[in-house]
Formats: sequence, structure tokens, C-alpha cells
Amino acid sequence: MKKKHLLNFAVILSIAVSSCVSPTAPTASSEQAESTEPANIIEDFKPSVLNQPGKQYPMVNSQGYARFKIEAPDADSVRVSLGLGGRGGTILKKVEDGTWMGTTEGPMDEGFHYYHLTIDGGIFNDPGAMNYFGSLRWESGIEIPAHDRDFYALKDVPHGKVEQILFPSESTDSIRRAFVYTPPGYGKNSSVKYPVLYLQHGWGEDETAWSNQGRANLIMDNLIAEGKAKLFIIVMTYGMTNETKFGGLKSFDITPFQTVLVDELIPYVEENFLTLKGSDNRAMAGLSMGGFETRLITLNKPDVFSYYALLSGGVYSPEDIKDKSTVKLIFQSCGSRENPERVESSVKALNEAGLNAFSYVSENTGHEFLTWRRSLRELAPKLFR
Amino acid sequence: MKKKHLLNFAVILSIAVSSCVSPTAPTASSEQAESTEPANIIEDFKPSVLNQPGKQYPMVNSQGYARFKIEAPDADSVRVSLGLGGRGGTILKKVEDGTWMGTTEGPMDEGFHYYHLTIDGGIFNDPGAMNYFGSLRWESGIEIPAHDRDFYALKDVPHGKVEQILFPSESTDSIRRAFVYTPPGYGKNSSVKYPVLYLQHGWGEDETAWSNQGRANLIMDNLIAEGKAKLFIIVMTYGMTNETKFGGLKSFDITPFQTVLVDELIPYVEENFLTLKGSDNRAMAGLSMGGFETRLITLNKPDVFSYYALLSGGVYSPEDIKDKSTVKLIFQSCGSRENPERVESSVKALNEAGLNAFSYVSENTGHEFLTWRRSLRELAPKLFR
Repeated sequence: MKKKHLLNFAVILSIAVSSCVSPTAPTASSEQAESTEPANIIEDFKPSVLNQPGKQYPMVNSQGYARFKIEAPDADSVRVSLGLGGRGGTILKKVEDGTWMGTTEGPMDEGFHYYHLTIDGGIFNDPGAMNYFGSLRWESGIEIPAHDRDFYALKDVPHGKVEQILFPSESTDSIRRAFVYTPPGYGKNSSVKYPVLYLQHGWGEDETAWSNQGRANLIMDNLIAEGKAKLFIIVMTYGMTNETKFGGLKSFDITPFQTVLVDELIPYVEENFLTLKGSDNRAMAGLSMGGFETRLITLNKPDVFSYYALLSGGVYSPEDIKDKSTVKLIFQSCGSRENPERVESSVKALNEAGLNAFSYVSENTGHEFLTWRRSLRELAPKLFR
Repeated sequence: MKKKHLLNFAVILSIAVSSCVSPTAPTASSEQAESTEPANIIEDFKPSVLNQPGKQYPMVNSQGYARFKIEAPDADSVRVSLGLGGRGGTILKKVEDGTWMGTTEGPMDEGFHYYHLTIDGGIFNDPGAMNYFGSLRWESGIEIPAHDRDFYALKDVPHGKVEQILFPSESTDSIRRAFVYTPPGYGKNSSVKYPVLYLQHGWGEDETAWSNQGRANLIMDNLIAEGKAKLFIIVMTYGMTNETKFGGLKSFDITPFQTVLVDELIPYVEENFLTLKGSDNRAMAGLSMGGFETRLITLNKPDVFSYYALLSGGVYSPEDIKDKSTVKLIFQSCGSRENPERVESSVKALNEAGLNAFSYVSENTGHEFLTWRRSLRELAPKLFR
């Protein structure tokens, strides 16, 4: 059996830290700050919670500005890809101590952002930040503390596990990987069985995204601790999305992934975990291109899933649903900066057609992970009811 | 409860790829190669199996040379920290296409190596390689295929899981993380209980090292498939080693970690996993500083562990063992380039004192992960017999 699929895969299982910053975090000295800061910026910068151990930079302030500091004494230019959307990022300036510093020209959206550095024309990651798989590579990550970050914070509550499994795939002649979230108490009584949510990442990402960038495990731990969600398993695997360039979705062939998911992974999960069987106990959801995949697979396989969710990933129309009795729930969400009207009008039409459909719009976010963390928070309580 | 401990922690759970290279891997064109290569080098370079998806460089050839290619068109100097020990690494030269290339001046040791780039005086990771936590930071990693790599290869055999757990620690006022390897079939019958190996990383590393750099899960899967090892659980957590600088071991206080391990983690594991209880069902092992910790804790707590293993991590003397009846096994290993005489003479003395002690020396390796992968392969079959 070839291992080709696996050769290039690794995962960061982020500890999924809360967005609160370290109480011991040093703040930037105003002397350093003045060299590059915009006007009216509050000097309460603290290290991003996604920094590597002991690293002060990148920093974030209470307004959502991000400040960067890079050591490259002999470099001619250092730029950070982050900034205000589409304006070429943040150009760092050399300061007294020979390092390069700069602050975003405005506040960033709350939540998680990918970024990288351009140093003398080459693209590198920030040595201060941890890496997350997006845009087909391990990128630097930074977290702007969200006002509602409590729902994905690491708290002193019972915690489920995130388990790496390796399953055989004949259709792809490979051994493939998935991550499985099992809720607190799972397995203590083997007579207790659980329904399963199959949760997909977006284009350019992989099976690591929902645990790392998405904090799916902590969102579930917190919902369960508050009694807001039923106990269920979440399975996250690679959606084979990266064989297709973004925008080329129309030419995307769902068949190879549908075969891996439905004919190989689901049977493996149902044999190796304490699962309830049948479509009433299976949900599929995905973000962005993972939503596109979810829509295709749920419609192709109405006998496999009964709960459907598209997170910034398109919409269903009433005509899509051949047999309404097979659909227990349709959930559609997006950020307020995406196309909420489309999501909401679609849900209205689905409801009028007699389907149990819900919409959710994440305030002041776009096509980004805070939208999807919040969407999971809204979706989970509605599943398997 | 503070989450300070967690703020800086993330893990790469490498898929623990085999060291075989991708059949589709392109080889370097000799044109590119001639610009920087040493004499008598065989031009069969292939991408390192630890490269990021789709990345050709770094490459490795069948002799163990590593070749690097970095895009930084406007940089003045690019150096790779890897090379022949202590000789300042490999200086890359600018080639026709404007990229920087270079090849190590000689073959590297087989197995895993950490490295980084120095670009215009700043330290960055290689955008082509995946990252591994060592030297207190996420470093680039490269794998030189070992002649005996089959024992840690990903194979079509039953695979255990690697589970991230989050456990409360009152003594450190934090929620801490461990990774738990459970063998194939674990949990299918809750009446089957397993002994546990507590396995520690080295200084500058963390709880991710044994799964990623060490391939502990695949080494166990393969030994179990061959019927060579008993089924047991492996628990890997952060040894709090990084509060002490290397060399400062004499001043290292083992008490805080011993409290977390013995009073907090072991009870949590024994409550939440299917474990056999009692010292006869507990082993402790560690590499380098993790061996130093293992030696201190096993001697402080003879009632907790009965199996001891130091991998490039010092030795026991017969005088260390107060009550020989509490020790079922002592295993000591190192690379042939370390101090095998010390390990072997110590084991001889332990045997003469009536202890069940074994030594293992890894051929042609030093203080590095191939030594420790091989050491685990030799240790596992001896545990819990």
C-alpha cells in the first residue's frame, strides 16, 4: 500500500488556548512603539496567545491592532501580509535596536488570522508565532481576542479528547488520517453510544483546521459543560480539496472524497468507536469548500446523513431535497460581511417548503474562522434532537 | 484556574511518515545541482519526507547529503544551520534562477535533524519543511532515510491512536496536556486493562516530541503487528524541563514535575483509561534530560514504577537501588558516538548486583532521535514481562 497521501501531512493540534492573554505578558515599551505606530493607538499591547513559547511578538492591543517585530539586521525590506484587507499588508521599519517593527494601519477583525512575512523578496513565517495549515502551507497564526471569546476558551470543565486515527483507504491506496473528538466521559460505559458529526475544513486547509484554528474541541467541551449540546462525536478528515484551485469548484469531482468518506471512513468509525448507527445519527457540515462538499454529498447520499450544515459554504434550495422526510435539519450560516441575505432568503424558502432550516449570521466577521467557531456554537445545540 | 501554562503550547502530531520517499518526487536537475555540489555526490536527490505539501526542497540523496533551495531574491546571505557538526552549517550560494542553493559538505547521520535558516542575520524556518518543537522553538525538520527505517515506517497494519488529553493540575494551577498512545483494539473490550509507560522528551522539547520526531506510535504499531511487544499504553507529557538551561541540571528541581506526574497525571490516566494498577504495571523512561528526570523520580518513588529506562540520559549505580525487589527492569542506551562504555559498564555492575539490567548502543548515531527510536524498539519488547 502506498503512503503517498501521508508523506506531506502533519498536524498541529493546538492546545486551543483561550483568547485571553497571559497575565505575565510584557507590554511593548512606548519607545519601541512610537517608531512605527499609527495615531490614537492604545499602548496596551500584549503577546498574541498563539505565540511560540517565550516570544513577545507579534503583539495585539485592546483595539485589535497587531504589532510585529522581526530580527533581520541585514535585510533590506520586511513586510507582513496582514493589514487591512487587500492593501498589501504592513511594511515594517527598521528601529533603533536594528529590528524591524510595524503596526497594522487599523484594527483587525476579531479572531484568528493567517499571515506570513516577505523578507527581501522571500516568503517566511514569523519566528514568534505558531503555524497553522492554510493556503496550502503552514502559515503563521495570530489571534485578535474576540469580545465573545469565552465560548471557545479553555476552561476548568471536563474535557473531551482529540484522537488521531489512521484508517485504510482502498479507493486511494493509502492510509489516511482523521481526528476524532470524543466528548467527556466517552468510553467509560461501553453500552453508551453516540451520534457523529462529520465536519469538513475549507480549501487550502486540512484535517487539522477545525481543532487548531477552529477550537472545535473546546467549543464542544464548553457547550456540554453548560448542558447546551447533546453528547456527540466529531470526525474531521482531509476533504481532498486541494487538488482543485479556488474558484474551480464547478469542475471539482466530489466522487473520490465521497467514496473515502461514505464507503471507508464512516464504516471504520462505526466499527472502532461507540456510535449510534443510521442516518438519524449522522450529520455532515463544512466550512467554505467543505460546505460545497457537504452540499454535494448530503444530496447524493440522502440515506447516509439527516443533518446538513453549510458554513459560508453555499445554500440549499427546496428543489435540491428529493425526499423531505430524510432531512432532520438544515443549518446555513455566514459572516455579516459575506452574503447574509442569500443565506437568510434561502432558509426562508426552505422553511416555506416545510423543512426544518435555520440561518445564523456572525456579526462583524467575514470569510474567517470566528464566523465558523460561532457557527459551530450555534449548530451544535440543534444536532441530534 | 489560570491557563498560563497552556498559552504557549501547540503540538505537531506528525503523521509519522515512513522514511521512504514519494515515488512521484522529482529529482534535482543536475544543472541546478552543479552550482553548489561537493565532488562525488550522487545526483539522486529526492524531497525530504518531512517537507510541506508539494515542496521539492529540502532534498536528500542516497548518500545522506541534504540539499537546500531558498527563495529570497534580494537577500545578501542565506545559511542553513545543518552541516557537519559544529562547522557553522551550510552557506548557500545564489544560482542562475535567483534562488539560494547549497548542499551539506558531507553525508548527515541517518534519521531526524532539526535545523533553521539564517537570512541576512535573522533566524527563520525553511518554508519547504515542516516544523518540530526542539531547542525551545518550532524548528524545521529533515529526515535522512535510515537503512533500518522499516521499524518506524507507516505500514498497512492495525494502528493505535494518539489521543490529546487535557488534565487539571492543582499544583501548577493549570490545565495541562498529555498525549496518550493506545494500542490497536484498545477499548473494544472494557474488561481488558493495560500497563502504562510514562515516556519523557528531552530539554528544549515538549510532549509532542515522542509522537513527531520519535514516531513512538508507529514503532509500537509495528512491534505489536509482529507480536514482539506486549500491548501497553504510552503517556507523554511536558517534563517542565525548559525552566532550566542545558548544563544546569545539578540545580534542576525535580519536585514540581514529580508532583504533576505522580500525584496528578497518573491518577487521571488510571481513572480515565483502561489501566492495570500498581508499580508492576508502570514503567518510566526518558531521553536525555527526560532520562535525568526518570532516574530521579524512579529513585524517589520506588513504589510507583518497577521498570526504568534511560535513553542517552545517564546511568544507575547499584548503590542507587535501595530495595532491589522493587525493580523489574533497568534499560540504559545511547548512540555509539556518545559514551557506550559508561552505559555498558554500568549495566555490567547492575547485573553483578543481581538486577535485571540491559544496555543498548545505537550504531553510528549520537545524541539524536534515531538513537531514541531504536532505543524504544529495543526497550518495548522487554516491558511488562
